[in-house]
Amino acid sequence: MTERLYLYDTTLRDGQQTQGVQFSAAEKTEIARMLDALGLDYIEGGWPGANPTDSEFFEQAPKLDATLAAFGMTKRAGRSAENDDVLAAVLNAGTPSVCLVGKTNPFHVENALGITLDENLENIRASIAHVVAQGREALFDAEHFFDGYELDPAYARACLDAAHEAGARWIVLCDTNGGTMPARIGAVVRDLIAGTPDRPGLPGDRLGIHTHNDTEQAVAGSLAAVEAGVRQIQGTLNGLGERCGNANLTSLIPTLILKEPWRSRFETGVTEEALHDLLRISRRLDEILNRVPRREAAYVGASAFAHKAGLHASAILKDPTTYEHVPPESVGNVRVVPMSNQAGLSNLRRRLAEAGLPGEDTAALRRILERVKAREDKGYSYDGAQASFELLAREELGLMPEFFEVKRYRVTVERRKNKYNEMITLSEAVVVVKVDGEKKLSVSESMDETGADRGPVNALSKALFKDLGRYQSQIDDIRLADFRVRIMQGGTEAVTRVIIDHEDSQGRRWSTVGVSPNIVDASFEALLDAVRWKLLQ
Amino acid sequence: MTERLYLYDTTLRDGQQTQGVQFSAAEKTEIARMLDALGLDYIEGGWPGANPTDSEFFEQAPKLDATLAAFGMTKRAGRSAENDDVLAAVLNAGTPSVCLVGKTNPFHVENALGITLDENLENIRASIAHVVAQGREALFDAEHFFDGYELDPAYARACLDAAHEAGARWIVLCDTNGGTMPARIGAVVRDLIAGTPDRPGLPGDRLGIHTHNDTEQAVAGSLAAVEAGVRQIQGTLNGLGERCGNANLTSLIPTLILKEPWRSRFETGVTEEALHDLLRISRRLDEILNRVPRREAAYVGASAFAHKAGLHASAILKDPTTYEHVPPESVGNVRVVPMSNQAGLSNLRRRLAEAGLPGEDTAALRRILERVKAREDKGYSYDGAQASFELLAREELGLMPEFFEVKRYRVTVERRKNKYNEMITLSEAVVVVKVDGEKKLSVSESMDETGADRGPVNALSKALFKDLGRYQSQIDDIRLADFRVRIMQGGTEAVTRVIIDHEDSQGRRWSTVGVSPNIVDASFEALLDAVRWKLLQ
Repeated sequence: MTERLYLYDTTLRDGQQTQGVQFSAAEKTEIARMLDALGLDYIEGGWPGANPTDSEFFEQAPKLDATLAAFGMTKRAGRSAENDDVLAAVLNAGTPSVCLVGKTNPFHVENALGITLDENLENIRASIAHVVAQGREALFDAEHFFDGYELDPAYARACLDAAHEAGARWIVLCDTNGGTMPARIGAVVRDLIAGTPDRPGLPGDRLGIHTHNDTEQAVAGSLAAVEAGVRQIQGTLNGLGERCGNANLTSLIPTLILKEPWRSRFETGVTEEALHDLLRISRRLDEILNRVPRREAAYVGASAFAHKAGLHASAILKDPTTYEHVPPESVGNVRVVPMSNQAGLSNLRRRLAEAGLPGEDTAALRRILERVKAREDKGYSYDGAQASFELLAREELGLMPEFFEVKRYRVTVERRKNKYNEMITLSEAVVVVKVDGEKKLSVSESMDETGADRGPVNALSKALFKDLGRYQSQIDDIRLADFRVRIMQGGTEAVTRVIIDHEDSQGRRWSTVGVSPNIVDASFEALLDAVRWKLLQ
Repeated sequence: MTERLYLYDTTLRDGQQTQGVQFSAAEKTEIARMLDALGLDYIEGGWPGANPTDSEFFEQAPKLDATLAAFGMTKRAGRSAENDDVLAAVLNAGTPSVCLVGKTNPFHVENALGITLDENLENIRASIAHVVAQGREALFDAEHFFDGYELDPAYARACLDAAHEAGARWIVLCDTNGGTMPARIGAVVRDLIAGTPDRPGLPGDRLGIHTHNDTEQAVAGSLAAVEAGVRQIQGTLNGLGERCGNANLTSLIPTLILKEPWRSRFETGVTEEALHDLLRISRRLDEILNRVPRREAAYVGASAFAHKAGLHASAILKDPTTYEHVPPESVGNVRVVPMSNQAGLSNLRRRLAEAGLPGEDTAALRRILERVKAREDKGYSYDGAQASFELLAREELGLMPEFFEVKRYRVTVERRKNKYNEMITLSEAVVVVKVDGEKKLSVSESMDETGADRGPVNALSKALFKDLGRYQSQIDDIRLADFRVRIMQGGTEAVTRVIIDHEDSQGRRWSTVGVSPNIVDASFEALLDAVRWKLLQ
């Protein structure tokens, strides 16, 4: 016997309150389609009339299986719902569902709005009744509800009753400031459903929960509310939202679908099959926003199923459930068992197998482990540089051809005045390699399309990739994708670790590492590995 | 009537299981001192004997008010605790407190360890008894406890009893896989404390909680355990840790100190005054690890008190409590109300006053704000580079002397064979400055005491500091203390931000910033600022 639990996404509305986030109408449409395919019940598209982008999105609203909702606020005092132009703009978007925010905290009613408590009740009642009279489904977003309930439970409750009696399908309990503890959220919800001697309880299947992450407990607060009886959860993808963000649907959805007690007790619109797309959807949103995905994000982070500790890594190889609470593939993620100075032979064999390399020669395997450990002590990291690891392993396995030899290189960085008496910076690199017994000299300077210098590593990369004789056609499609630098101890007299990612025209992406006290030399080492790896393909 | 709640930090041990994280012994010492100043009760330094860095840290352990703990595992089967060399290495670190991890889940005992259930109980009992016999405080880390309790509550409980009866001061309940819901954690803890007909309850003030963030509920799980009766919380700064991380002390500590019901019920070792340093400590850890601070982090994120919504921003100006659950300054954070020049100006005045600079000239102040904003858009960061900020402010205030002029510089990095036919790398820098109308040419190469090259920035720094005429005596005691590089976008064709810390013989330490697509040029800019700032003193 499962009960239906409804998922309400507000990425496009409350998620847009994130610092630095501003969706275009086209991006809103793309995100709405992703959410729809995932199986969300409600998608809140924005506030029609509040800004041109939101209005444009609703004008060309995509066809969805999910119910599209428009957000707005209850009518203002001193005019009727019919004559409130802000409310009219919201209704004009023509969505089947309309969510109106209103105050439930007497402090805010009197101080922020400056109206009487009764006027506020009437605003809620009349606005919700107006939406219902238009044949729409109405939701009431009870702003600051938990703080209001703390201050004056009878008044906060009266606000909910006003919306309920006016015909709201859902009354959404908002912890707007994000400061309410999950246990308190649960207790308040239980109070509301139980009722008081003078007020009957509100039905849980008409209540929703909307939390914020200001104490890092938005997910727990939402689940505490469901446990206490609410049947709608509002949240955002990747936890977008003002300040510390809203309840993170990317964490909540897999928990509800995969984990007890939720899995047995509730049914949502998201199937286990659709859940396999969760990681892809999460990454796509980051791409749209040009945000770096959080490695440590629950379920979808690149580290969420990465096992570093030696004890863990060996147990994982025996049975993944030893250190995984759900299978990574259930959300489209993958297990990562990195090479690290704590890892053993079985770990190494698995990694070699992934690279298509043989794992039988135990003596060679031990040499590989020793070399990895020795190099990690010097500052190398093979966790994030699989391609460099493969090259090292191939050398010890006798499977590494010598494609070419680097005889020498020289890089110059110069800052001086140009002929217009302006200060400019110039970088120039010379690389000398020997290919098939023949010496090849290449020189490059580093300029972008505007004539500005892009630095010594760029110059070096261009010179190295310029002429490798008969290998040239194989490296022409290499493109530098990312470049990360870490100084391993304080001071310039410390070791620099450079990790470089490259891509090619076939969509391959590979990472290489270089370490040296000299950042240019560390970069060159990583560049060289990148070329050698590509030539192996 | 408040009860004492103990905070146990495992940043240096479990936090080090984060992908890509590897502390040096010096970094461990610095972090331990920060945690100690904050008021943590226990600081777990690592696993002595497991790797050279941890052993080195314990050999030179800093003097702390907090109790230093060493981590290890219970003895292996088939030998006595006295003869287990792994356990001996842990005890040899000589810490007042020793935390030993052991299995409590029968599945792991039989499959991962391959020993009998009774052998495992004996390993726990004998190991804890051995630690206690050495006069140390013993903690038992009950690995996989919640999963074990699900599978076989009697056996899991028997493991805890073995540790308890052997004299463990603390029995720490670990949700190792991070998959247990907070409500379930609370229920299990209540069971343990209540006991069963055949076993008396365990005292809550001997129980600890250790959670992981795999469902984004590690903080809530820890608090649910405290609510149910445990009196020790284990966690890490910034939520470092394997996979999705450990319980985040940076979120838990302010919640416990500032928020109800915790504030009234419990006392910790962290004072409200020490809490003001929380943001600084969190940022310093990110700096050490060269990680980008999470803007949306609870309490300490740059966005945690940023108000974007128009309605919110205007209400905030009337009364901050309308949209803030705690005052930002309680954790050393600041309110951000975009478009609010008022907040900007008063902020700026405060910062100028700290630098001993006048804040009366409002027109100059506005120019400073504009220039800071324009430069931050280009990738500069003045949060971490107070000295560069001071120079910028002085320029706008007309208080910046021109000490010398840099005419040009040139740096060469060369990799080639030496006369012994060995590959070597050489860096050489020439810097030309004009001091008091006189041109000075300085050249340096970069070699350490072993004759190895230390890279282009080092060579440049030596050449710049070599001859500044009459200023030379003032800069002779400058020492480079730290050097941090961040690439602001992917690709070498992105902007590089370099932040350099210098120190002098009077113990001053100052930070400067440089930004350029060219890492050498960005470094040179930061070096120049460092010299100019020093000459002002």
